[in-house]
Amino acid sequence: MKNLLVFMAISFMAVWGQAAELKSPNGSFHLSFEVKDGVPVYSLQLEGQPVILESRLGLELKGLEHLTNGFKLTKVDESSFDETWEPVWGETKEIRNHYNELAVTLEQEETERTMVIRFRLFDDGLGFRYEFPQQDNLTYFVVTDEKTQFAMADDHTAFWIPGDYDTQEYDYTISRLSEIRGLMDQAITPNASQTPFSDTGVQTALMMKTDDGLYINLHEAALIEYSCMHLELDDENMIFESHLTPDAVGNMAYMQAPTQTPWRTVIASKNAGDILLSNITLNLNDPCAYDDVSWIKPVKYIGVWWEMITGKSSWAYADLPSVKLGETDFSNAQPTGKHAANTEHVKMHIDFAAKHGFDQVLVEGWNVGWEDWFGKSKDYVFDFVTPYPDFDVDELREYAKSKGVRLMMHHETSSSVRNYERHMDEAYKFMEDNNYNAVKSGYVGDIIPRGEHHYGQWMVNHYIYAVKEAAKHKVMVNAHEAVRPTGLRRTYPNLLANESARGTEYEAFGGNKPAHTTILPFTRLIGGPMDYTPGIFEQDVSKYNPDNNSWVNTTIARQLALYVTMYSPLQMAADLPETYNKYLDALQFIKDVPVDWADTKVLEAEPGDFITYARKDKNSDNWFVGRTNDEEPRVSNIKFDFLEPGKKYVATIYSDKKDAHYKKNPKAYEIKKYVVTSKSKLSQKCAPGGGYAISLIEAQDKSETKGLKKL
Amino acid sequence: MKNLLVFMAISFMAVWGQAAELKSPNGSFHLSFEVKDGVPVYSLQLEGQPVILESRLGLELKGLEHLTNGFKLTKVDESSFDETWEPVWGETKEIRNHYNELAVTLEQEETERTMVIRFRLFDDGLGFRYEFPQQDNLTYFVVTDEKTQFAMADDHTAFWIPGDYDTQEYDYTISRLSEIRGLMDQAITPNASQTPFSDTGVQTALMMKTDDGLYINLHEAALIEYSCMHLELDDENMIFESHLTPDAVGNMAYMQAPTQTPWRTVIASKNAGDILLSNITLNLNDPCAYDDVSWIKPVKYIGVWWEMITGKSSWAYADLPSVKLGETDFSNAQPTGKHAANTEHVKMHIDFAAKHGFDQVLVEGWNVGWEDWFGKSKDYVFDFVTPYPDFDVDELREYAKSKGVRLMMHHETSSSVRNYERHMDEAYKFMEDNNYNAVKSGYVGDIIPRGEHHYGQWMVNHYIYAVKEAAKHKVMVNAHEAVRPTGLRRTYPNLLANESARGTEYEAFGGNKPAHTTILPFTRLIGGPMDYTPGIFEQDVSKYNPDNNSWVNTTIARQLALYVTMYSPLQMAADLPETYNKYLDALQFIKDVPVDWADTKVLEAEPGDFITYARKDKNSDNWFVGRTNDEEPRVSNIKFDFLEPGKKYVATIYSDKKDAHYKKNPKAYEIKKYVVTSKSKLSQKCAPGGGYAISLIEAQDKSETKGLKKL
Repeated sequence: MKNLLVFMAISFMAVWGQAAELKSPNGSFHLSFEVKDGVPVYSLQLEGQPVILESRLGLELKGLEHLTNGFKLTKVDESSFDETWEPVWGETKEIRNHYNELAVTLEQEETERTMVIRFRLFDDGLGFRYEFPQQDNLTYFVVTDEKTQFAMADDHTAFWIPGDYDTQEYDYTISRLSEIRGLMDQAITPNASQTPFSDTGVQTALMMKTDDGLYINLHEAALIEYSCMHLELDDENMIFESHLTPDAVGNMAYMQAPTQTPWRTVIASKNAGDILLSNITLNLNDPCAYDDVSWIKPVKYIGVWWEMITGKSSWAYADLPSVKLGETDFSNAQPTGKHAANTEHVKMHIDFAAKHGFDQVLVEGWNVGWEDWFGKSKDYVFDFVTPYPDFDVDELREYAKSKGVRLMMHHETSSSVRNYERHMDEAYKFMEDNNYNAVKSGYVGDIIPRGEHHYGQWMVNHYIYAVKEAAKHKVMVNAHEAVRPTGLRRTYPNLLANESARGTEYEAFGGNKPAHTTILPFTRLIGGPMDYTPGIFEQDVSKYNPDNNSWVNTTIARQLALYVTMYSPLQMAADLPETYNKYLDALQFIKDVPVDWADTKVLEAEPGDFITYARKDKNSDNWFVGRTNDEEPRVSNIKFDFLEPGKKYVATIYSDKKDAHYKKNPKAYEIKKYVVTSKSKLSQKCAPGGGYAISLIEAQDKSETKGLKKL
Repeated sequence: MKNLLVFMAISFMAVWGQAAELKSPNGSFHLSFEVKDGVPVYSLQLEGQPVILESRLGLELKGLEHLTNGFKLTKVDESSFDETWEPVWGETKEIRNHYNELAVTLEQEETERTMVIRFRLFDDGLGFRYEFPQQDNLTYFVVTDEKTQFAMADDHTAFWIPGDYDTQEYDYTISRLSEIRGLMDQAITPNASQTPFSDTGVQTALMMKTDDGLYINLHEAALIEYSCMHLELDDENMIFESHLTPDAVGNMAYMQAPTQTPWRTVIASKNAGDILLSNITLNLNDPCAYDDVSWIKPVKYIGVWWEMITGKSSWAYADLPSVKLGETDFSNAQPTGKHAANTEHVKMHIDFAAKHGFDQVLVEGWNVGWEDWFGKSKDYVFDFVTPYPDFDVDELREYAKSKGVRLMMHHETSSSVRNYERHMDEAYKFMEDNNYNAVKSGYVGDIIPRGEHHYGQWMVNHYIYAVKEAAKHKVMVNAHEAVRPTGLRRTYPNLLANESARGTEYEAFGGNKPAHTTILPFTRLIGGPMDYTPGIFEQDVSKYNPDNNSWVNTTIARQLALYVTMYSPLQMAADLPETYNKYLDALQFIKDVPVDWADTKVLEAEPGDFITYARKDKNSDNWFVGRTNDEEPRVSNIKFDFLEPGKKYVATIYSDKKDAHYKKNPKAYEIKKYVVTSKSKLSQKCAPGGGYAISLIEAQDKSETKGLKKL
C-alpha cells in the first residue's frame, strides 16, 4: 500500500482562555471545545447549522474522584493528516483519510491527573476519544459510567432499536426522539438473550434526520478493551448520553494507563448518501496488523442452513433429550430423519456450488451437540471437532476439493465462551487440516460466564481474541450475535463480517419490516459489513415447513438488489438449491455480482424509504446497481453517469413486474437487457417491499449489444 | 493395582413403610433413613451414641419445584463392597475400601421426578450423595440451595474457620458451637480475596469433639462439577446446613442429569487418631483416571520464595508503576536490586539442592509481570513464558540438569483465570521444553471473571481442567488458593498438593497460632495433602527484613516434626540456604525424611493440643516419628511397638531443649541418638509451640548401634 502523507503540527503551549476551535479540511464543520467551570464541553456545527449543541464530556470512576470536572485546559495541539490507503477488501479500492485534529490536554488540579481528548474533524464528520497518558496519579482505574453527551438541537426523527446489553436483533422503529419512551415496550420483541436497560435507551449506530433535512449519525469506532456504548436519551432536554454495558458486577470497563477509549463518531451531511459513503469509522481504526494478507479473500457461498431456520430440517441428528459430549453414543441413537448436514445432502450442495460458481458451502449441524444446545445454559455444549455419524469429514473434504469448492465451518458456541476458548486451537487446526478457511461463529443465548453480557468488555475482548487466533491459522471469521462492528476490520481484515443485527433469518421467525434493508446501511452497516444472507426466492415459509407461517417480506427482485445494497465481502445465496433451480434466470444476477469493489456510489438514498447503490467490481470494469424499496410503491430515477464515458455496457435489469408486491405477488419479476452508456438514464417502478438489480457488463464487441434497446 | 472385590446386592422392590436402615461392616455405626411426611431424613449413631440427630435432606432448584419434599420411598438397594487398592503415592501402601451401601430411590409424586440418595457406611464413618438418574422430567436444573442438614446432638466443641467463598487462610478458632456467632468478627482477619457470608458460617472439613469424647468430622469428597459446600449453623437448634458457594448471578450449581452431587462425609470415632487415619475421602473418589502414572513422583524441594515472603527480596525485577506485557521494555528498566529470581542466585540454590539431596528448586518471580500483579484486577497480567532479563532459562535448565536437579515452575495466575487458560497449553509446553515437571500455581486476589468466587462451580471446574491439561504434558500440580481438596488426588494423582489453608507464609504476615498445626490435620488435611512449606529455622523475620516484625511461632524441633505430621508428597524446606548452613545437623532430618509412605500410625492425638505420627518409608524399612505441640508445655509418651519386632533401629531424636519456647527460645534444640526396638518407649518433653522429630533407621550391623543408649 503506497501512502501519501502530509503532516503538520502546531502546538500552543500557553492557552488563551479555556477554549479551542477546529474546522474540517473543507471548512464546513466547526468544532468548539471549552472547559467551562472546570467541565469539558464541545459542540459541532455544519455550515452554520447545529449538529451537536453544547455537550459535556467525562467519565466516572470507581472509588476514585471522577474525571468529569475540576479541569483546566493546559495544552492544545493541532495537526492535520492526509493519507490514502488501500483496504484488503472493501467498497472502494482506495480510502482517503483526511482530517484536522485537535488534542486538548486537561489537568485535574485537585488530583493532579491528566486526561487528553482528541478530536478529528473530517469533511463528513467528527471522531473524538478520551486518552489517559502514563502518569503518576492514574494507572489502574475502573469506569463506572461514561458521561459523554450528544445534545440534539431538536426533536429529530430517529431510526432506532432498543438499547440492549445482549442483542441487536430488533426491527427498527422510526419516530421522533420524544416518542421513543412511548414506543419502547412494543419495540422490545422476544429474543434468546436480551437485556434492555431503559425506556429511552437506544443502540448505535443511531441514524437521525432533522426537520431541516440534515442527516446525523452517532456511532463508535475501534471498540477495543472497553465496553460497548449505547445512548440513553434525556427526552426532556433531547440530550443523549453514553451508556456503557456493565459486567457481572456492574462495572463498565477496567483500564490501565496509558490507554484510551474507543472513538465516538458523529457523521453528518445534508446528503443521506454521504452518511453511507463515510469512511470515518475505518479511518479511525489502526492500520492492518498482519504482514501477510494473501489468504484473506471475499467469499460467495450457499449453505445447508435455511432449511433448518425454516424448520424443514433439523440441526440435530438424533432424537435425544440431552447429550453428554464424549459419552453419548450417536451411532446407536435414533435419528430424527431430518438431519440436513449429512454427506449426500452436502455433496448435492457442493455440486450446486461448483456448477454455479459459488466458493463455499456453509454446513450447520455437522457436529455433535445440537440436540440440547439451546436454552440450557450448558457449559460443555460443543467440541467443534466431532462430526455426527452421517457427516463424513474426510469424504466431504476430498469431494469438495475435487470440485474446487470449500466447505465453510460453523462454530455455534451457544455463548459458552470458556468452552469455545478451550477448544479454539484444536477447532482452528481441524479447519486447517480439512481445507476450511472461513468460519461462521455464533453466540446464541446468555453468555457463560454467567452475568456477563454480549457487549461488555469481557466479550469485546473475546471476539477480538477469536479473530486474532483465527489469523494464526489463516482463518477468516464471520461472527454472529457478536458486538456490532466498529471498523476493526481495517486492523484485522480476516474479520470478514458479522451478523449483529436482525437478519434474513427473522423472515422465518415472523418476518422483518419491508423497509428494514432501507435502514440497515444507515445504522448497522456504518460499523462494518453484515452477513445478511439474502437471496430468498420462496417467500412462503410454510412451503418448506407447514408448521411455519412466516412470510419473507420482499420481492425476488429486491432480494437480488441486496447483494449490492447490503455491502459485505461475504455473501450468501441463502435459499435451497431446489428453489434456485426454479429461477435460474434470477440466480444469474447472484452469480454475476462480485463481492469486492473498486468504487461505490449512492445514487438515491432516504433512510426508511429507499437506497440505490452503484458499485464497480474490483476485478473488472463492470458495474452493478441495486435498489431496495420500502413498503410504498415508488419510482426510482437514476443516471448512469458513473460509467466510463465512451464505453458501452450490456445492462441486465432484474426488476419487479408492474403488479409485484412483497406479500401479494412477490415472485413477479422481469429481466430486461439494454445497451447503456454514461449518458443513459432509467426510470424504474419499484413494488412495495421491492426493488431492482442491474448488472452492467462492458460490451467487448458489437455482437453483444446487437438487437438491444438503448437506455 | 490388584483388587479384591466382594459384591453383594439385595434389592427390595416393595418397601415396607418409608424407612431403611444400614449398619457399618463392623456393626458399630447405625444409619437410619426415612421419608417422613414426604421429607427425606437421616440420622447416624455410633455404638448407641448420637452422631447426627434426625436431619433433613434435599435441594432447592431455580424455577422448578424443589427437591425437598413430596417424596415417596419406592426402592431400596443394599450392597456391600470390599476392595483393597494401591494409591500412586500416599500415607500407606494400600488402602482398604470396605463399606455397606444403601441406595434409596425417591419419587416425587407431583412432578414425577426421581432422586436417589446413596449412603456408604464405613467402619469409621458415613458418606452420602444425591443422584439424579436419566429421566423425562428432570434433565437440566439449577441448584439455588442445598438443604442437607447435619443436626448435632449438643453444643459441641468445634475447631473452625469462618465460612468464606474465597479464602481459607484463617487461623482456627476453638469454641463451642454456640460461641461461633460471637467470635466470628475477630476470626475474620484480612485477606487479598475474601467473602464471608454469615455470622455462623464455617468451612469444611469441620472438626468437633463432644463432651463425651466423641470426635466428629464433616467434609465432602469428590467435588466435581458442583459448588463447594460450607456449613451454616442454626445455633438455636445446633443444626448445620449445607451452604454452597454462589456464582456471579447467585446460582449455586448447573446440573445435567444423569448426574450426582459430591459426597457429604461424616467421620466419627472415640479415637482422635481414627479421624486422621480415615480413608473415607479417598475411597469415595473414583479410581485413577490415567493409564500411565510413571511420571508422577513425590518431590522434596527448596526455593527462591521465603526471602520474598519476608520482604527481604522482591518478586518484581524493576521499579515500574505498571507493566504491559509485550510492550514494556525490561532491558531498559531500572532494576529494584532486590530481584531474587536471578541466574546466579538460582544457581546457588541448585548447588544447595544438589549437595543436600533435594529434588527441585522452586523459583518465584522468574517471569515478567510482577511489578503490578497484585490488587489491580489486571486481566493480561502474566504470560507464563517470558523471563526477566536476569533469569536465563537456557543456562539454568542446563545447569540444573548437570546437577541432577530440576527447577520447579511457578504459575501465579493473579486469579485472572481466562488469561491463564489462554496461555496454559503454551505454558505447559514451555515446562516440558525446559525440563520442568512440577508447577506451583496460585490464585491470589479476586477471581476474574469478576463476580465468580474461588470456590464456586466455575472455578472448581477450572482447577480440575488445569490438572487434566497438566497430565497431558506429564506435569504435576501444586495449586495454592484453590478450593480445598476433597480426595480428587485418587482420580488425578498428578494433583500432588494444594495450599488452600493458612500456611507457613502467614508466619511472616503476623504469625500463626502455635497450635495451628495441631488442628490442620483434623481439618484441612482430611481432604488431601497440604503444601505447608515448613522448615523455617529463623523465627525472627526482622533478621531478613528489618521492616517486618513477624515471628514464626514454632521451635526448630517442631519445624522438623511437621515433615511427618503434615502429610504431603510435596515437601518444601522453605528457609534460606544461608540459614540452613548454620543448622546443618537439624537439616539432616529434613534430608532423611521421605515423602512417600508405606504405613502410617497415630501415636497420640488431641486436636488443638498435639499430634504424634509414626510413618514407614515406602522405599525402605525405616520409620519416622513427628510430634507437633500447642502453646502448652507437655510431655509426650509413646511406644515404638509399630516397629518390626526383633529389629534394631538407630533413633535420632531432634527435640526441644528443656528451656525451649517458640517465642523466647525457639532455636534451643538437641539431637540425641539411641538404639530402639519395638519394645522401646519414650517420654519426651515438648516446649510450647514445640515438638520433636525422630528418624528410625534400621541398623544393618552392630557398628551402627555401638555406644548408643537403648530406649
